[in-house]
Amino acid sequence: MFKVGIVGGTGYTGAELIRLLVFHPRVELTIITSRGEAGTPVADLFPNLRARVDLSFTEPDVNALAACDMVFFATPNGVAMNMVPELLASGARIIDLAADFRLKDAETWEHWYGSAHACPGLLEQAVYGLPEVNRQQVAQANLVANPGCYPTAVQLGFLPLLSNSLVDYSRLIADAKSGVSGAGRGAQVGTLLCEASENFKAYGVSGHRHLPEIQQGLGYIAKQQVGLTFVPHLVPMIRGIEATLYAELTTEFESLQAIYQHTFADEPFVDVLPSGSLPETRTVRGTNICRIALHQQPGSKHVVVISVIDNLVKGAAGQAIQNMNLMLGLPEHLGLESIAMLPV
Amino acid sequence: MFKVGIVGGTGYTGAELIRLLVFHPRVELTIITSRGEAGTPVADLFPNLRARVDLSFTEPDVNALAACDMVFFATPNGVAMNMVPELLASGARIIDLAADFRLKDAETWEHWYGSAHACPGLLEQAVYGLPEVNRQQVAQANLVANPGCYPTAVQLGFLPLLSNSLVDYSRLIADAKSGVSGAGRGAQVGTLLCEASENFKAYGVSGHRHLPEIQQGLGYIAKQQVGLTFVPHLVPMIRGIEATLYAELTTEFESLQAIYQHTFADEPFVDVLPSGSLPETRTVRGTNICRIALHQQPGSKHVVVISVIDNLVKGAAGQAIQNMNLMLGLPEHLGLESIAMLPV
Amino acid sequence: MFKVGIVGGTGYTGAELIRLLVFHPRVELTIITSRGEAGTPVADLFPNLRARVDLSFTEPDVNALAACDMVFFATPNGVAMNMVPELLASGARIIDLAADFRLKDAETWEHWYGSAHACPGLLEQAVYGLPEVNRQQVAQANLVANPGCYPTAVQLGFLPLLSNSLVDYSRLIADAKSGVSGAGRGAQVGTLLCEASENFKAYGVSGHRHLPEIQQGLGYIAKQQVGLTFVPHLVPMIRGIEATLYAELTTEFESLQAIYQHTFADEPFVDVLPSGSLPETRTVRGTNICRIALHQQPGSKHVVVISVIDNLVKGAAGQAIQNMNLMLGLPEHLGLESIAMLPV
Amino acid sequence: MFKVGIVGGTGYTGAELIRLLVFHPRVELTIITSRGEAGTPVADLFPNLRARVDLSFTEPDVNALAACDMVFFATPNGVAMNMVPELLASGARIIDLAADFRLKDAETWEHWYGSAHACPGLLEQAVYGLPEVNRQQVAQANLVANPGCYPTAVQLGFLPLLSNSLVDYSRLIADAKSGVSGAGRGAQVGTLLCEASENFKAYGVSGHRHLPEIQQGLGYIAKQQVGLTFVPHLVPMIRGIEATLYAELTTEFESLQAIYQHTFADEPFVDVLPSGSLPETRTVRGTNICRIALHQQPGSKHVVVISVIDNLVKGAAGQAIQNMNLMLGLPEHLGLESIAMLPV
Repeated sequence: MFKVGIVGGTGYTGAELIRLLVFHPRVELTIITSRGEAGTPVADLFPNLRARVDLSFTEPDVNALAACDMVFFATPNGVAMNMVPELLASGARIIDLAADFRLKDAETWEHWYGSAHACPGLLEQAVYGLPEVNRQQVAQANLVANPGCYPTAVQLGFLPLLSNSLVDYSRLIADAKSGVSGAGRGAQVGTLLCEASENFKAYGVSGHRHLPEIQQGLGYIAKQQVGLTFVPHLVPMIRGIEATLYAELTTEFESLQAIYQHTFADEPFVDVLPSGSLPETRTVRGTNICRIALHQQPGSKHVVVISVIDNLVKGAAGQAIQNMNLMLGLPEHLGLESIAMLPV
Repeated sequence: MFKVGIVGGTGYTGAELIRLLVFHPRVELTIITSRGEAGTPVADLFPNLRARVDLSFTEPDVNALAACDMVFFATPNGVAMNMVPELLASGARIIDLAADFRLKDAETWEHWYGSAHACPGLLEQAVYGLPEVNRQQVAQANLVANPGCYPTAVQLGFLPLLSNSLVDYSRLIADAKSGVSGAGRGAQVGTLLCEASENFKAYGVSGHRHLPEIQQGLGYIAKQQVGLTFVPHLVPMIRGIEATLYAELTTEFESLQAIYQHTFADEPFVDVLPSGSLPETRTVRGTNICRIALHQQPGSKHVVVISVIDNLVKGAAGQAIQNMNLMLGLPEHLGLESIAMLPV
Repeated sequence: MFKVGIVGGTGYTGAELIRLLVFHPRVELTIITSRGEAGTPVADLFPNLRARVDLSFTEPDVNALAACDMVFFATPNGVAMNMVPELLASGARIIDLAADFRLKDAETWEHWYGSAHACPGLLEQAVYGLPEVNRQQVAQANLVANPGCYPTAVQLGFLPLLSNSLVDYSRLIADAKSGVSGAGRGAQVGTLLCEASENFKAYGVSGHRHLPEIQQGLGYIAKQQVGLTFVPHLVPMIRGIEATLYAELTTEFESLQAIYQHTFADEPFVDVLPSGSLPETRTVRGTNICRIALHQQPGSKHVVVISVIDNLVKGAAGQAIQNMNLMLGLPEHLGLESIAMLPV
Repeated sequence: MFKVGIVGGTGYTGAELIRLLVFHPRVELTIITSRGEAGTPVADLFPNLRARVDLSFTEPDVNALAACDMVFFATPNGVAMNMVPELLASGARIIDLAADFRLKDAETWEHWYGSAHACPGLLEQAVYGLPEVNRQQVAQANLVANPGCYPTAVQLGFLPLLSNSLVDYSRLIADAKSGVSGAGRGAQVGTLLCEASENFKAYGVSGHRHLPEIQQGLGYIAKQQVGLTFVPHLVPMIRGIEATLYAELTTEFESLQAIYQHTFADEPFVDVLPSGSLPETRTVRGTNICRIALHQQPGSKHVVVISVIDNLVKGAAGQAIQNMNLMLGLPEHLGLESIAMLPV
């Protein structure tokens, strides 16, 4: 059994990591840290874990974490970068679910996250953990930056169009919608049930932190800079991201569907639906699957790609475990085989 | 007091008409028809109307309806066109909340609605009831085609861009989201709470009936055919439409905000928010208001316009009453002054 | 026009007071205070009020408030009691929507609210503002304690049983359920959409602050102490309270329905439904109405009374305006005539 | 591997059986019947099962079903009783998730279900499948009547009070609340999202079909007839039942908590929470667990028991699999070990 630790286990990505790791057949969860809840049994905070998780939260301790085969950071942005250098030096392998190591350029990071980066020298070394793009690099990595939720849905949706040079790179649009859990477990007026249910709104329209991450990722796939307009929206539900993507085809393609199916043929977690399908977020809820479908409207220049994921699984904790499996040489799907409930 | 009748009062648009008309100071609701519920007190079907509405549903009767100063059709698509010619001939003035008279071209209608049109000769005469575009014609009309919900939100959002020739007409995108009440009060598996809550999905991506209506309306404003991609989505909430609109500016404009404010300066029901605002559907819930805001992302060619309405009010019954006010020479805002509840 | 002020206008009861007062035909809202938001236009915090409310929040000022014909306190528990003595001395008339003056016994208050009462001498003078019980006293009062939401639903439901001595006073049970807005607009983890939706739970089972208020009110009606078990529950919705009440009939009564109808025959805001009806919270949403229905199961000793209100209207702001109307000698229903939307 | 068939796999209990059986390590699902969907791939109706379930729905065929080691009926009430006699005669073992075999008295059945019972002779033989009461009988049974959802939550909650003679049997009250999935997947106006969300109501107050089932079950436990008032309510959520139970203690007991813990000490799926806990439906969502907590209010005669389950799992499909495990001699918890997601 590999030993695994989680730094910052009181938020939704931490809770989701715990839930998934409890059933992982090759991994033992040995440490869950939280400065605020140190001493509290994990199952007191998350009663769904009663009788399944005996651990209590502890203060983060580098030596204890260094004894793990894998350390996940499920901390707020800006926390991991202060602990990672020392942990890496101790030989630990690390997956950061926050944004600290996602951007390659320290200045861009500082612009969007509003503070100096504590270890810019590690940005190049960190591997962006989107297995469908970087599977080999992830397997070798000591430090993986787990992608954001919107970036995962958007990059997987655009991937075949960009890697095959099928569309006008300057006119990409991603109209994305997320459940409220994307905003985390912090107490905020805006995500109260009374404020967020029976309501729909766009937010971050003038610039969301996931914009530079998506631009970087699409640029990497396209091997050139892309022009992207990205508008996120808040959906009155708990989990799920749907991204409706618009791109202009540079020529007529009759075989778009085949190209998508071919691109993802061997991917364990990308499911290209038959042409004309309508992916629903609920069919991937609680799972690590990304479902994608293609549409073209008569007389329109645009191809419409729809991509759905669970923001807390393929968009966070599930993808982190997929990356862990790759790094530990385990079958990629291990511990990630559940099925969405229906009805939800 | 003007006498008013409603044909088909058992659906959501009918129920909303009744609710709004009960408080209209110059109008008396005298007839509410329903073949299926004839004889049932209206307040038995809609208990929110107890002690406020004494009428019972009756079988539709042309003579009785002809005695009204205004007749609303809140029937399914394809019903009004079979009664309207006779009613018009009796001198009645009519507002159809269904789609029967929205499209000018009978062939297009028949393509999208799947049956022959019963009175294609009336299509030209019918006035498309979007007051912000056709106020004068509505006031004179005997037959008004009340716009669809998506078309209202999308046309109002694009209006200043198209009427002022500011954007590339061939590259318009409308990514629209609607609450479930847009699907009506009919019993369907897909709109059960267990199927539609905690879920988000696009639908009608390969072609929704509102697409030709929007194309016709935008083409009328632009005075030329437009290229539009329109993708509707289902939001797990009851009421509200949000349309996120994308268009490519043909030159740089510093004064877009001013153009929008100028265009709608005298409109009683269009509220242009300050630049950078984020309109929420809940702020227009139960009201006849359309709220609009503009955004541009650095480095993007696109202007992003966000437009929100209540699909059952400005997108249906409220706009019908606005049209009625115009047709009867009443102040346009009469009976339409309520405020959204907050919290919802 | 009477001048009205609101102390503490940033919570849900404050927002609801503002919404209702905007349309009150005999009242002008002149002051809305908030220490935290002083200077902010009210419509910036509550965008549903754009173009309807021009006021900005101000620091609370006793002199300014004393110039009002009526002052509402929509502050957290424990705030009003520190300002009320001085305001009363200035001749102001006051309605407190919080709990400061609801309990007659200062010790009981201190036990449940955890601090010393600032002006216990006013507790006797304060009139408990349940018009169906205390209409005459309210009309004469200078200080009205507006009832809590659960207490309103429970007392109205039990009223005819107790005032007519029909049941065993020692065995009353109130199983009550509330939407999340009852917890207020404060940022708390427990009322986040992600925590409170798709979930149902009891809370405060070992003792909720509304228990002594209900006991006092029922005891007043029954003219003796009652034995009550009260269990509140949190419903994953925004507004509405349903109370399912259980009592043991002391003899057989065939005319319970008639007794209820008789008791509330002249009440403008209590609607006794036909026997066997099933009141729904949505039919009273946004309104000041309490709907009540009676049931008896074959072979059961219990009568089951179901009572529904909107917790923010009849359970808070609406009842406060009803009390204001009584105090100002206005028709009791003024400004409280709206109808619930359906669909919600 | 044991072979298993499902008759009637298109409803929510059928879908849930399939989801749970897919991961059961000792069982192979070989037949899923549906007259209406015969020929349709199961994964087309339930896209959450894509790539996991290859079966298509078939017409029900007794010979094919008889080859299974276990046959589940997930059909509407009144269907199973027409096929069960022939199937039993072929040697099949059967678990009926509907109500056909739950009541021992055919007349009572006919009164509540409105038609003649097709095989009253089997009612005595059928074992009521509540393992916590009938574990040994279930293991030996050929025909198990799987309990209803409300009856499961209510009986488990009352069990220790009745089996230990601690309360007044004539004054039991069960105030129960269920998510909308309890109403099934049929298209009905009342369970549309627009009708059932943002609403709370009691239903079936004058007599619900689960009342006689609960009375029979409690009477069996108490070894005498009980007096029960049962009021079910509809909660605006998909899954979950909460039952708040009231009973009058016949003497003072200091050790109620200990009695509950002792009663359920060896039960794999009943979790007695520490005294004063507040069970939430979300903590058992998707799981076969029943969580129970006890409360007593100062000065009240009543003990309050709160019991929560997932109506589709412990209240239907999960309990059916628990029964199957017992009947097949498998470990009782096999295939039922999942953890609730949090956030939901």
